[in-house]
Amino acid sequence: MAGSGTPPVGTPAGMRMINQRAVLDLLRRGGPATRPQVAKDTGLSKPTVSQALLALEAAGLARATGHTSTGTGRSAVLYEADPTAGYVLGLDIGREHIRVAVADLGRTTVARRDVRNTARSGSALISALGKLATDIVAEAGLTNDDIVVRVLGSPGVADPVKRCFRHAPNLPGWGRPGLLDDLEQVLGPELVVENDANLTAVGEWESGAARGASVVGCITIGTGVGMGLMVDGRVFRGATGAAGEIGYLPYGRTRVSDEPGEPPARGHLEEATAAQSVVRGARELGLGTARSAREVFRLAREGDELAQRAVSAEADRLAYTVASVAAVIDPELIVLGGGVGTAADLLLEPIDRALRAFTPLTTTVVQGELGDDGVLTGAISVGLRAAERLVFDRRVGAA
Amino acid sequence: MAGSGTPPVGTPAGMRMINQRAVLDLLRRGGPATRPQVAKDTGLSKPTVSQALLALEAAGLARATGHTSTGTGRSAVLYEADPTAGYVLGLDIGREHIRVAVADLGRTTVARRDVRNTARSGSALISALGKLATDIVAEAGLTNDDIVVRVLGSPGVADPVKRCFRHAPNLPGWGRPGLLDDLEQVLGPELVVENDANLTAVGEWESGAARGASVVGCITIGTGVGMGLMVDGRVFRGATGAAGEIGYLPYGRTRVSDEPGEPPARGHLEEATAAQSVVRGARELGLGTARSAREVFRLAREGDELAQRAVSAEADRLAYTVASVAAVIDPELIVLGGGVGTAADLLLEPIDRALRAFTPLTTTVVQGELGDDGVLTGAISVGLRAAERLVFDRRVGAA
Repeated sequence: MAGSGTPPVGTPAGMRMINQRAVLDLLRRGGPATRPQVAKDTGLSKPTVSQALLALEAAGLARATGHTSTGTGRSAVLYEADPTAGYVLGLDIGREHIRVAVADLGRTTVARRDVRNTARSGSALISALGKLATDIVAEAGLTNDDIVVRVLGSPGVADPVKRCFRHAPNLPGWGRPGLLDDLEQVLGPELVVENDANLTAVGEWESGAARGASVVGCITIGTGVGMGLMVDGRVFRGATGAAGEIGYLPYGRTRVSDEPGEPPARGHLEEATAAQSVVRGARELGLGTARSAREVFRLAREGDELAQRAVSAEADRLAYTVASVAAVIDPELIVLGGGVGTAADLLLEPIDRALRAFTPLTTTVVQGELGDDGVLTGAISVGLRAAERLVFDRRVGAA
Repeated sequence: MAGSGTPPVGTPAGMRMINQRAVLDLLRRGGPATRPQVAKDTGLSKPTVSQALLALEAAGLARATGHTSTGTGRSAVLYEADPTAGYVLGLDIGREHIRVAVADLGRTTVARRDVRNTARSGSALISALGKLATDIVAEAGLTNDDIVVRVLGSPGVADPVKRCFRHAPNLPGWGRPGLLDDLEQVLGPELVVENDANLTAVGEWESGAARGASVVGCITIGTGVGMGLMVDGRVFRGATGAAGEIGYLPYGRTRVSDEPGEPPARGHLEEATAAQSVVRGARELGLGTARSAREVFRLAREGDELAQRAVSAEADRLAYTVASVAAVIDPELIVLGGGVGTAADLLLEPIDRALRAFTPLTTTVVQGELGDDGVLTGAISVGLRAAERLVFDRRVGAA
């Protein structure tokens, strides 16, 4: 939506704004260009383009970036969208980690930090996030006012009414009503909260393994298991935002009618598939030393037979998951994102084999390209989309 | 798309056509109206409305249907969209049944027939469909030229390249390349083929239990099990049209890596949930006499304990299915459509109970309102949407 100061469409001022936005969008998507190139690509007249570039320069949204010499020997000024016109803060929270990054409007990361999440309560985590955000903004040589949008990725589903996260049993205190307000308090305004698996899916769709796929599920496994769904380039959330909460697939259970019915706090599949289960599975198989999924994967690569059996069991669980997802939404592609994607060399082949036994539906499973950076990449993408609009509206729309 | 004779937009002829379409749409959606009412509701001038109504009358698309007397005692002509301007043929094919109906553009069914499908080969079924179509069109007092669109609902997924159905193991010969051409040969042109569960979902969404739901899955169980998915009023097909093929959910299996991998021809869930399994389950429980799911349901209602246990097992399987669907797409609503919907009185309560044991995600499960008419209702809906456009383009657009 345009800012409140936006001139009405159809007036000369409104037309000028539309033209300026067209010129800026072209520079943002297409990279540096000369005045005649901009005129050609937008279909606007050269005087209109000159006027728009002047206004964008004055607003700090575009800048001259050098010269090009054309065939005739004449040199022309190259313009680009000014990447320093605004910044985005991305945060990725898991039970074991916190990752934060600041990127400029040109998508360049200007500061980045990965730390262990040692907080054991909601308020401790909020404080840690606030401090980390302050530190990294300072480290980037910026002030809080330079940050146009903040995007926080977290397990669970944001509840806009209770202002907290549902379905995030791995983060203590995350379900407390009002939590989102406290986060906004320490992080700043224009805070977008989003499910971490959804952000990974956005990241892999925009700049990873799922570029342009029509229907894609991006499965991530860490402390919990989740899936982000992209349909035609947009996050598919379902009716209450819980689409892709595949940890709740009723894995391995078919009869329940005789049991007393307390809902499980963690989903059946999550119990079976989350990272520690690779470890537990390996231990149950006799691999007493395994301490992390990463270690089990390493041992499997080195030829350890018990570790390989644990990996094979994980492949079965993933094949079950993929088969379930395929039967419901028939994705073009399933991406193994996050940490588990880094074990794709071990998992993809047995997953494919197991899939053929599970289902006649064929589904392509591939390794994610972003690894542990998936959530942050998606957070920055979501932030940039919003920031581009906000910065323009503030500097031009309301001028 | 408009017909090839459509006048270009922006010309006076183009404007006249747009206005005529607006007037006709208003009469179709809003019912009979007078000239001044049409002018008021479309925002067109009275002379423009008069001209449009004249043209629509001349084209046989609108007609006077009576008079209304206003408060001042003056009477005005009421116009309506002419429902006889075109007809739609709907067909619903299952292994055990064939249902056909002809409806006019006003959605009134003018002929209807339900017969048993006794064909045991693809070519026999095609002949039977051709004969049935010819008969019912004649019965309605129409000729083949009056049918503007044919819509055929079938199990499986139409393959536009091989021109046949994939994933329809219950219909012999339905996977033969070129099958769709043979169907068009006997049924006529403008043939739309669609998965039967998708059509049931369209039917329940347009005029049944799922009116206006944002994300809804409509589960049908007959010879096979399927689900039609509607997202924002449109069928969600997935990447290859197999979305909702829930018969392929990997029900009850979690370990496969040690088994040799021939893909199953029927899905695991389909084996377990299809109608005959209610019968098989009842027989296994000792109810040797049960011959159909309907009979098992009847016995359960009469208090037969074995039948009730068979129903309870079916409720568990459905709860497993709903829990799986919920974990993937988080629907606003799950509709039990088709035949199984008629047993909702027995199933809904145990499904809800089992669901709570399967998953903390809450999903509303309701009975479909259309029963065995779901596929035909959806077929007519899809046909009407296409026919309205085609009839206008032929009679006005190309005039």
